[in-house]
Amino acid sequence: MAVYTAVDPDDLAALVARYDMGTVLSCKGIAEGVENSNFLLETTAGRFILTLYEKRVQEDDLPFFVDLLAHLAASDCPVPAMIRDRDGIAIQKISGRAACIIQFLSGISLTHPTVGQSEATGAALGTMHRALENYNGARENSMGHPYWLSVAQATGDLDAVMPGLQAIVDDELNYLGAHWPTDLPAHVIHADLFPDNVLMLGDEVTGLIDFYFAATDFRAYDVAITHAAWTFSDDGSTCNADLARALMRGYAREISLSVAEIAALPLLARGASLRFLLTRAHDWVHTPADALVTRKDPLPFLNRLRRYKGADAASLFAIA
Amino acid sequence: MAVYTAVDPDDLAALVARYDMGTVLSCKGIAEGVENSNFLLETTAGRFILTLYEKRVQEDDLPFFVDLLAHLAASDCPVPAMIRDRDGIAIQKISGRAACIIQFLSGISLTHPTVGQSEATGAALGTMHRALENYNGARENSMGHPYWLSVAQATGDLDAVMPGLQAIVDDELNYLGAHWPTDLPAHVIHADLFPDNVLMLGDEVTGLIDFYFAATDFRAYDVAITHAAWTFSDDGSTCNADLARALMRGYAREISLSVAEIAALPLLARGASLRFLLTRAHDWVHTPADALVTRKDPLPFLNRLRRYKGADAASLFAIA
Repeated sequence: MAVYTAVDPDDLAALVARYDMGTVLSCKGIAEGVENSNFLLETTAGRFILTLYEKRVQEDDLPFFVDLLAHLAASDCPVPAMIRDRDGIAIQKISGRAACIIQFLSGISLTHPTVGQSEATGAALGTMHRALENYNGARENSMGHPYWLSVAQATGDLDAVMPGLQAIVDDELNYLGAHWPTDLPAHVIHADLFPDNVLMLGDEVTGLIDFYFAATDFRAYDVAITHAAWTFSDDGSTCNADLARALMRGYAREISLSVAEIAALPLLARGASLRFLLTRAHDWVHTPADALVTRKDPLPFLNRLRRYKGADAASLFAIA
Repeated sequence: MAVYTAVDPDDLAALVARYDMGTVLSCKGIAEGVENSNFLLETTAGRFILTLYEKRVQEDDLPFFVDLLAHLAASDCPVPAMIRDRDGIAIQKISGRAACIIQFLSGISLTHPTVGQSEATGAALGTMHRALENYNGARENSMGHPYWLSVAQATGDLDAVMPGLQAIVDDELNYLGAHWPTDLPAHVIHADLFPDNVLMLGDEVTGLIDFYFAATDFRAYDVAITHAAWTFSDDGSTCNADLARALMRGYAREISLSVAEIAALPLLARGASLRFLLTRAHDWVHTPADALVTRKDPLPFLNRLRRYKGADAASLFAIA
């Protein structure tokens, strides 16, 4: 959450002039997004988000995101579509960065969801999955199961993060490597639907945002990620059964998971926990303490992993 | 420029409910302001700025700022007034911080002003001074001339910032101490009118913002600060005569400075240069390298100081 790159007012006026969106009234850097520079842009035609893509988002991936969000928006999912200029171009250049002007969506990112908000999010995830079942786009999941070993190796000594962590991760990588499913329904998924990537007004989902980890993977893995992201206490030690039941109830309104998918959920959630444990541990080790980016503590995901390995893991999904 | 303090959505809804401004639609942290947390707040009634005051702004000073901005707004100056709730209260509490909901103003902060924009800023400064001539409020200028010695002492060894700087500052403090005027027209001034504190659309000033250094001092000192802030190259080595003439021309449309004030401008500008040189040097030394706040290089104000000490200093004000 930071603005890295400044935008010159004249360059901005020239960019906006490529679109049918009037003239600039205001442009303020906002503290939002992965590692991009985001601005809340107001013109005489309305409000928009201007995103400048920094190092973490590959420029080669941008056409995929443009197409994905256009598809979802056309399917009535509340996602922020990238807007095309008069020549049909969505990916622009400003301040030496690739940049897009994006729809503005109302709503607030939650910190601690209620039961009603958890149910609404489950339903929104299901609606999105229905819209993606027959979507032709595809993108390799560079944060997916085949890559966790290399993330762990690139992190270095995991015992430096927490004594004993290396052995836990090694065991888990072995177990998941031996048991990871191969034939569950798959399509493009969000893969990062944490509460800060859902905009809400009351119990209504007004926006699903930050698709920059979207990639092809099991839809049930997306459910598992969302479960890990929404239903635990901040320290990851406790799963809130009411939130979990609500999330699964909302999702089930839109998608009927197969018996095989339901049976796989605890294992997929172990994978989801390991994925965020590893990427957070990696960033923890490799982010300088003086960086503008806030480092996220990896250990709450170790706690989730332990819960999902428990004998009662199926009950966490309200499917036992 | 950073968001330090998070706002809980429920607390925000409760705060907004105290006002006649509908319900919250969106609230995004923006990268703006001195050391406060600022949010762009959208409700069903329009857009606002929500400011949470962090350590640098004294809570005891807030009633002064509320009254000052109300006075200026009532005088048709384009300033962001703090909005009062149904009980007439402007200073609220949220997330453990004093907070105000403030008018949203259109416009963009400039980086490199044009001649037309410099003239408009001079005129806006003059209009603001006219509105303040008979204003009853007062606030001691804790960044004013009497305090520069203590800022220098609190910084420690200035030669650690740049070899030779200590002697330059000592000489300048002596000179200004002996020659600083005592009887020029004074009232509350902005005292920090850098380009990032002026919102513009084209050549129109749409907002004068960030009054948190406003205090009682010579109006000609405010002109000198604005001159130092607007008319120099980034490194402070070159004064742009066209920008300088335009600034003074715009100001003169609103205020006729006295002969004594005009004669004092080069000296006051030396003071303005020293003030920012010292506070930046102080922050440079005392801000940890890993802080979220961007440290500002003090040396461009040493360069300005040198220019204002030159034999042709009067010409920089287009008054020779």
